[in-house]
Amino acid sequence: MAIKKIAVLTSGGDAPGMNACIRAVSLAAIGAGAEVIGYKYGYNGLLKQEYIHLDPYAVRNLLQRGGTVLHSARCEKFKQTDQLHIAAQHLNDAGVDGLVVVGGDGSFKGAERLQSIWDKPIVGVPGTIDNDVAGTDYTVGYHTAIQTAVESLDKVRDTAEAFERIFVVDVMGREAGFIALNSAISAGADHVLLPETFTTAAEELVKILDKLDKRRKNRANKSHIIVVTENLWPGGLNVLADSLQAESGVDVRILTLGHVQRGGSPVWQDRLLATKLGTYAVEIIKQGQKGMMSAINHRLPAAVPLNDVSIERKELNSYSMQIRDEISLLG
Amino acid sequence: MAIKKIAVLTSGGDAPGMNACIRAVSLAAIGAGAEVIGYKYGYNGLLKQEYIHLDPYAVRNLLQRGGTVLHSARCEKFKQTDQLHIAAQHLNDAGVDGLVVVGGDGSFKGAERLQSIWDKPIVGVPGTIDNDVAGTDYTVGYHTAIQTAVESLDKVRDTAEAFERIFVVDVMGREAGFIALNSAISAGADHVLLPETFTTAAEELVKILDKLDKRRKNRANKSHIIVVTENLWPGGLNVLADSLQAESGVDVRILTLGHVQRGGSPVWQDRLLATKLGTYAVEIIKQGQKGMMSAINHRLPAAVPLNDVSIERKELNSYSMQIRDEISLLG
Amino acid sequence: MAIKKIAVLTSGGDAPGMNACIRAVSLAAIGAGAEVIGYKYGYNGLLKQEYIHLDPYAVRNLLQRGGTVLHSARCEKFKQTDQLHIAAQHLNDAGVDGLVVVGGDGSFKGAERLQSIWDKPIVGVPGTIDNDVAGTDYTVGYHTAIQTAVESLDKVRDTAEAFERIFVVDVMGREAGFIALNSAISAGADHVLLPETFTTAAEELVKILDKLDKRRKNRANKSHIIVVTENLWPGGLNVLADSLQAESGVDVRILTLGHVQRGGSPVWQDRLLATKLGTYAVEIIKQGQKGMMSAINHRLPAAVPLNDVSIERKELNSYSMQIRDEISLLG
Amino acid sequence: MAIKKIAVLTSGGDAPGMNACIRAVSLAAIGAGAEVIGYKYGYNGLLKQEYIHLDPYAVRNLLQRGGTVLHSARCEKFKQTDQLHIAAQHLNDAGVDGLVVVGGDGSFKGAERLQSIWDKPIVGVPGTIDNDVAGTDYTVGYHTAIQTAVESLDKVRDTAEAFERIFVVDVMGREAGFIALNSAISAGADHVLLPETFTTAAEELVKILDKLDKRRKNRANKSHIIVVTENLWPGGLNVLADSLQAESGVDVRILTLGHVQRGGSPVWQDRLLATKLGTYAVEIIKQGQKGMMSAINHRLPAAVPLNDVSIERKELNSYSMQIRDEISLLG
Repeated sequence: MAIKKIAVLTSGGDAPGMNACIRAVSLAAIGAGAEVIGYKYGYNGLLKQEYIHLDPYAVRNLLQRGGTVLHSARCEKFKQTDQLHIAAQHLNDAGVDGLVVVGGDGSFKGAERLQSIWDKPIVGVPGTIDNDVAGTDYTVGYHTAIQTAVESLDKVRDTAEAFERIFVVDVMGREAGFIALNSAISAGADHVLLPETFTTAAEELVKILDKLDKRRKNRANKSHIIVVTENLWPGGLNVLADSLQAESGVDVRILTLGHVQRGGSPVWQDRLLATKLGTYAVEIIKQGQKGMMSAINHRLPAAVPLNDVSIERKELNSYSMQIRDEISLLG
Repeated sequence: MAIKKIAVLTSGGDAPGMNACIRAVSLAAIGAGAEVIGYKYGYNGLLKQEYIHLDPYAVRNLLQRGGTVLHSARCEKFKQTDQLHIAAQHLNDAGVDGLVVVGGDGSFKGAERLQSIWDKPIVGVPGTIDNDVAGTDYTVGYHTAIQTAVESLDKVRDTAEAFERIFVVDVMGREAGFIALNSAISAGADHVLLPETFTTAAEELVKILDKLDKRRKNRANKSHIIVVTENLWPGGLNVLADSLQAESGVDVRILTLGHVQRGGSPVWQDRLLATKLGTYAVEIIKQGQKGMMSAINHRLPAAVPLNDVSIERKELNSYSMQIRDEISLLG
Repeated sequence: MAIKKIAVLTSGGDAPGMNACIRAVSLAAIGAGAEVIGYKYGYNGLLKQEYIHLDPYAVRNLLQRGGTVLHSARCEKFKQTDQLHIAAQHLNDAGVDGLVVVGGDGSFKGAERLQSIWDKPIVGVPGTIDNDVAGTDYTVGYHTAIQTAVESLDKVRDTAEAFERIFVVDVMGREAGFIALNSAISAGADHVLLPETFTTAAEELVKILDKLDKRRKNRANKSHIIVVTENLWPGGLNVLADSLQAESGVDVRILTLGHVQRGGSPVWQDRLLATKLGTYAVEIIKQGQKGMMSAINHRLPAAVPLNDVSIERKELNSYSMQIRDEISLLG
Repeated sequence: MAIKKIAVLTSGGDAPGMNACIRAVSLAAIGAGAEVIGYKYGYNGLLKQEYIHLDPYAVRNLLQRGGTVLHSARCEKFKQTDQLHIAAQHLNDAGVDGLVVVGGDGSFKGAERLQSIWDKPIVGVPGTIDNDVAGTDYTVGYHTAIQTAVESLDKVRDTAEAFERIFVVDVMGREAGFIALNSAISAGADHVLLPETFTTAAEELVKILDKLDKRRKNRANKSHIIVVTENLWPGGLNVLADSLQAESGVDVRILTLGHVQRGGSPVWQDRLLATKLGTYAVEIIKQGQKGMMSAINHRLPAAVPLNDVSIERKELNSYSMQIRDEISLLG
């Protein structure tokens, strides 16, 4: 299919590598003879016809930059049917032959709704640090967020060991434990709390204390690091910290890594993934496929129906779950 | 003066480069023909006679390591006169000819008290990320803490700009604005709140809003970064964030960098400074000088009486203060 | 199978994450009730009965350390049959029930030879930055080496663009282009030379000049980065640089990244991979399987016969090869 | 003095923080009510009237970027008197009231020559990784280059120790040992060769072998790192490596860090220094002072006659020289 113009936007929570996606989509489209425009502030730009032209100069040196030059935003309005029609009209007015939406599952739901009333291809590119998008092995931003978390945990370990304290560290992930599980294993944390396995505060506290107890027998040092997925502990981490301090008698500190996990120059895997998924999104548009996600499965790109993406819940790696329990008793 | 044995300990808040100090003291002492022991957990180890031997093997590869292998701790007990006498006795029993205390001004007060009843040299090495020790241009750990803060602020900027948010970022420093001022200028933050200049919440809020207003006229983007020294805003940063959001209409987020600022491999300046101050501390002991701090002034090491250190308040750099106001109106 | 003692060694070219392997093997073995010893200097330690005990204290904080505390080495002698018998005897004398060899394909050949005459399980763990081991998706060290190369390429780009120079950058990889291909795409290099596709110097030079020519039309800047796998260009990179400079009229500089690619704290993927492959190696030994490699395939660990590993050549990712050509014409 | 337009250019070897200088000059000038233009490719842009406008948008986010958006270059032509007159004419034609030249001593010589025939202020800002500019404590780029060298040396140590090799590492610095001396001490290298103290290859080789010999007695490991200033060893590092290998019997490897030392996001000290020197350069222009360098002395900015700069040779830190010998015997 001959394409003359492709549009791209970034939507939802920002992630390192979104700029690399914008670059890849742009270069692939330009390479295919098309023009490229980028809507600003996610779907808001589409509704307001606010966009910029993306030529090779505009995307130069974007590969390595954190953030998104198109800006991102949530867009509540985009849930209204009349707004979808305005968006479709704007795409047609601008002569757009295909739209690439870089974002997470919330953004993909918007893409699906828009696709249902627009007759040209919309392709989603999974861009979120949370990795909570089914149908693709990885999402853009995930690799960098974990590396940032691990580097912070390495630093926390220094001070935890110096003072023999317990540190409770809050990492991002929304409803999914991908960042928590992988950063905890990679940083040699003593324990990790995941939404996928969390039961009750009382039960989890028993498990934590039991683990700390066992570990202390295997080494002199009383420092411990416990990684917790955001928003998981009922009442917040202060509640957990107070309980831990009361029960263990060891000084407990809290650290919330927060938004640093969303920033920074992407690590190579996110740059490579963004480049693959972005170029493949253009390929999907050229093939005229509608309502697809540009995904990576077993290291090769694939077109996966957005519809399938929304109904599936993504599993944590089974072997990672296994070694989490084995290793952390001794480590 | 012939010295046969030197002791070293790290005390108070831990700082990157404390290990490099331990290594430097050890290598310089060994080079001078002395043995070296390291007391663990600050003054607590001195009171409990808990120490390890520090030979060239023991300090190998410590230069680049964060934390402190001797551990650190506060020691309330050390304020009691009878405990000082126990400490002095322990030093004599162990045959120690000189003691090096790596820490901040609180640790130096302990060193002064101990010096007043012990007849051999005690030397302080300024090791704290806060840089709030008078009599020395810089303290060990300060350079790394700012670099860590700046790297985090760089990441925060990515996400702040993507979403056009205001970020209020809490950095360490205790009662001093060194980390806040330098990290804010180095990261191009829009505003910085310092203990040295803070008046009232109401007045400071007016200044912040005024600054944000001016900056917005100079650029389209509504993202801003405000750096705040820890414990400064009355009622906490939530209070500030709520006021800012209400007044500006822009989404405000809070980030507390926290203990990551105390960890990590020291940057080269802290390694070099630690090496200079540690070796010079041994020199001071060899000269038989008592109650001194091993300091850096105008890039050369110097012996400064601990007594002078405790009464002086250290000023922020005057030109940094000046450009803080100039640059940040536009930048 | 009840195991009482497991031995581990690191052999061949060192790679970031080897220490994490040593830790994982040790913790998994200790968790299974076994003792662990580590032979030093690869197979040399086995021949000289030079080893250390690895308890939880010994492997503490190894996860994040570059290098290998067991040291590595090549061992020519190990190709002699009589030496293999000595090694087997030493393993028996020490009461070893299973041996883990962390290294590349050369080290695995030694493992196979030893397995042919020793009756207890030997398991290989793929540890090499080159990723040139078939039968496993990735090798330990590979992810870190590419990240190091990409960070260096990012820095080179700054100076290349400042001066509008061509930089020819030599990266490691031995006979394989994994590091070169992935670092080139991830850093947005203009061209990459791979052992898998290299024809002749004359032909490749034409392609390079053609590419540079096309790219220059798409942008004003005359700076270019060309990534070359080590030892690939006939006569060395000076020959290539001279030709390029003569033909393009642009100033050409050479940079050989070298051994920095082998060092540094491993990135999280190498830590995680090392932890998985190390623990799984112990699992393979417990199962009594002989002559296996602990591999990762589609994100799960698997036992792969070492024999299969040695005969297969590993392919570069097909989609990476494709985008290499597409993207680099414009980027 | 009322200034309406200021021009800035970057010249000579590029250095991290040049962009931060451009930003600081621009913001300070704009803050003073002036317009700003930036000449491209150093003095070449001045001769060709090739420049861009620098408003707050143009310099946004330049603070943290490596390289120089104005590009840099040497300019042989600028040594000709007729070219100087052309340059002065171009400055007058553009209505420029003051010129800021960011560069090293070579660039400052050009600035002095131009100042001798132009009647408005020219101010030099010392920007070079080599730190070889007298009259200022530090130059912009110097802090980052050493940090880059130290991080590389940390990685080299990993692989050096794994294989027990000697690494000879070439660092930049031109005719000055600042980078070599500071990176060697900060990385705990075993020996460093400096242009300031180098005698003959024969004598230096004896010293190196003697040092390695002493160190080996203090530890089991035979790995050593020797830092060498570029272009220092007669015949090149291969000659040194061959001699070392022949004499020591230990495997010797060479690593040339090269241009990575010129790139990368500047560390905070270079950002702060660039901001101070850049803003102060505008202050000097406002004061109407001619032929000055904006310098940093004892942590405060100062105007230093360019003439004084060119005749003085800058000394290495005396205490650094002293500990270099003491510490490195034991290490």
